[in-house]
Amino acid sequence: MRHKVLILGGGFAGLSAARALKKADADITLVDRRNFHLFQPLLYQVATGTLSPSDIAGPLRSIFSKQRNVRVLLGEARDIDAAKRVVTLADGTALEYDTLIVAAGSTTTYFGHDDWAPHAPCLKSMEDAVEMRHRIYFAFEKAELEGAEGQSPWLTFVIVGAGATGVELAGALSEIARKTLKDDFRSIHPEQSQLLIVDQAPRLLPAFSEHLAMKAEKQLLELGVRVRCGLRVTCIDSDGVKLERPDGTSFEIPSKTVLWAGGVAIPGIVKDLVHAADAPADRRGLVKVQPDLTVPNHPEIFVVGDIAFVEQEDGRGLPGVAQVAMQQGKYAGQTILRRLKAQGPLPPFQYSDRGDLAVIGRAAAVAKVFGHELWGFPAWFVWAFIHILYLIEFQSRIIVMIRWAFQYVTFSRGARLITGADHEKN
Amino acid sequence: MRHKVLILGGGFAGLSAARALKKADADITLVDRRNFHLFQPLLYQVATGTLSPSDIAGPLRSIFSKQRNVRVLLGEARDIDAAKRVVTLADGTALEYDTLIVAAGSTTTYFGHDDWAPHAPCLKSMEDAVEMRHRIYFAFEKAELEGAEGQSPWLTFVIVGAGATGVELAGALSEIARKTLKDDFRSIHPEQSQLLIVDQAPRLLPAFSEHLAMKAEKQLLELGVRVRCGLRVTCIDSDGVKLERPDGTSFEIPSKTVLWAGGVAIPGIVKDLVHAADAPADRRGLVKVQPDLTVPNHPEIFVVGDIAFVEQEDGRGLPGVAQVAMQQGKYAGQTILRRLKAQGPLPPFQYSDRGDLAVIGRAAAVAKVFGHELWGFPAWFVWAFIHILYLIEFQSRIIVMIRWAFQYVTFSRGARLITGADHEKN
Repeated sequence: MRHKVLILGGGFAGLSAARALKKADADITLVDRRNFHLFQPLLYQVATGTLSPSDIAGPLRSIFSKQRNVRVLLGEARDIDAAKRVVTLADGTALEYDTLIVAAGSTTTYFGHDDWAPHAPCLKSMEDAVEMRHRIYFAFEKAELEGAEGQSPWLTFVIVGAGATGVELAGALSEIARKTLKDDFRSIHPEQSQLLIVDQAPRLLPAFSEHLAMKAEKQLLELGVRVRCGLRVTCIDSDGVKLERPDGTSFEIPSKTVLWAGGVAIPGIVKDLVHAADAPADRRGLVKVQPDLTVPNHPEIFVVGDIAFVEQEDGRGLPGVAQVAMQQGKYAGQTILRRLKAQGPLPPFQYSDRGDLAVIGRAAAVAKVFGHELWGFPAWFVWAFIHILYLIEFQSRIIVMIRWAFQYVTFSRGARLITGADHEKN
Repeated sequence: MRHKVLILGGGFAGLSAARALKKADADITLVDRRNFHLFQPLLYQVATGTLSPSDIAGPLRSIFSKQRNVRVLLGEARDIDAAKRVVTLADGTALEYDTLIVAAGSTTTYFGHDDWAPHAPCLKSMEDAVEMRHRIYFAFEKAELEGAEGQSPWLTFVIVGAGATGVELAGALSEIARKTLKDDFRSIHPEQSQLLIVDQAPRLLPAFSEHLAMKAEKQLLELGVRVRCGLRVTCIDSDGVKLERPDGTSFEIPSKTVLWAGGVAIPGIVKDLVHAADAPADRRGLVKVQPDLTVPNHPEIFVVGDIAFVEQEDGRGLPGVAQVAMQQGKYAGQTILRRLKAQGPLPPFQYSDRGDLAVIGRAAAVAKVFGHELWGFPAWFVWAFIHILYLIEFQSRIIVMIRWAFQYVTFSRGARLITGADHEKN
């Protein structure tokens, strides 16, 4: 009987774990709700019409078609029985395991205001991105149809969240409004659109230094994006956003397009795991793992990626980014490999931070790379190079390069389709 | 007051009409339900995961951004008042016209069996293609999850319709099952899938000669596709298809994936037009137009494309293909241009048939080109060349060429995503 490894999730962490087990004498089952690996760092480019969904999605089966010890299953984990070592899928399929790697990824939270969701789409899945693309381009169409009085809320875009995703969305929106759509309308002037980033945090890009955050804000201002930090969102509905200042006074921004770029939550299956394996969790629900990324008293259960809390020297966890997920997945895979070969354990997991990047627009970005701070064109160049490099499939790399080159020269956005059955979203 | 031209539909006919009016001293309004022009001849490649939606969609606004006399509106025509010369959109917007070009395109009919639609998706819109792609790839996933007993209906694909679309879908499905997915599963053998084309028509590809149809059937057989003509579909439900032989006996094909590739119908707005303008229609509902493509007694209303019936010498109409639509749209535009310049009318519309093509698989197709019959590689080469050439956008041409080249070499299908909220379709 070969050792059975079950991996929940085909994101960066799950993929890296399965790949690290390439030479393992084990039966690996990788379960995902989708049949593709999503290259999430470029999801905002699908949402803004630069890239097509398939450009940033690699079919999981084709990624593993040559790795014969991996079996891919389309399904959603519903229940974990840590005592019996069985995971049950939504369709009732029961999967036994000897080692479990939970790499389920995070979801979006509206902080208890789920009623905001219909009015402020988020950006987590491919469906989210296509929906967001629909909203953005439909808003301009709707403004063109409206008379002069009704245009303003359709041409006001509010992004909630001043992290990397918010900044990236805002930069892309600015280019859409000022360049891509410049000559496309007859009644409206897309370049007069209002673009805002709002957040309760005291400043832009908390993951970066204050110096880089200021550089980013300056680049955003040049693109016509206003940043309003220290404001609490109290309501989002079909008319716009209500915001509260620190002094308790409120005001409204009438907007038909509010985009949600903040709020990370833990999916139900992870909460279930925490309960089933009696694992400790932090206040957000992240699983507090051991130094070897396993759950206390369950050396056979690894938790990796966005949902794992690995306490650092400063008491904080690691950021929920691809780089961390890939390193953790690889670590889990390598640990299992060593166990199968009866080799001693690896030293505790140590994150090797190669840097952090946030792109703002063409030739505009902020980056810290191996301890160096970059901005403007150099940061943008590093960003583009790394993202092309990390795309899973060779074909995607070429197609993404071509699309970026075209857009760089012509400002065009070939993937700006408004699709989906329901046209009138607002 | 400039002459107002209103074009309903941004397909091949509407696009050609607007382009022919490039130098017209007129205000042209083009209304479409979608914000993009769809290159329908390659829609089956989206449905089978070769191309991405944006590869075959050109945003209407960017197509006309430089043609300043064209205004694009996103909307759906709901009512035509031929006496007052006003078209009303679904959102209530009233558009006056001096000349109207109805280029609304055809829709799909299930011949009175609308209850078949949920079990047999068609291939008319981008949403249809994405839905069909979902069904096809999901079927293999489901087969992998099922035990040996339950696999067979998930690996049986029935295509209803033996025209070009049916043949193209069948050829692509064969390559998916035999090549693309060959190494991707661990429990099933996709290459053992059953592929069938069924139709009530007496033979494959009625638009082609018997000789070419035989060539096509031979090429399909080599790909493992069986063609069953002369069979009437009596029922399609979640278990499969019921078919009736000419002798009245029936049989069933258990299948979870039935694809509808036949049945052209007329959209409601065209029926409304026929009624409002007191226009004659053939038994299918197509508008019987004058030799100059206008409606009798309404020289200001042109009907072009799939919905127009232009009687030929043999009493039959013209096929509902892109070539006919483009020539008719151009003719309508040129006629308006001459009227605006007070020049005499053009000679009656004459279709110049440059040929017909149906692709079957790699290096396999049938074609009649300028009276010559081709098959195999030469036909396929002509097909690929013409389709690349007619793609609207330069960027799309390059990306489609790259995708085809990759697929030709590796059999990969990068766009085989299963997306959409509803996973369990059957």
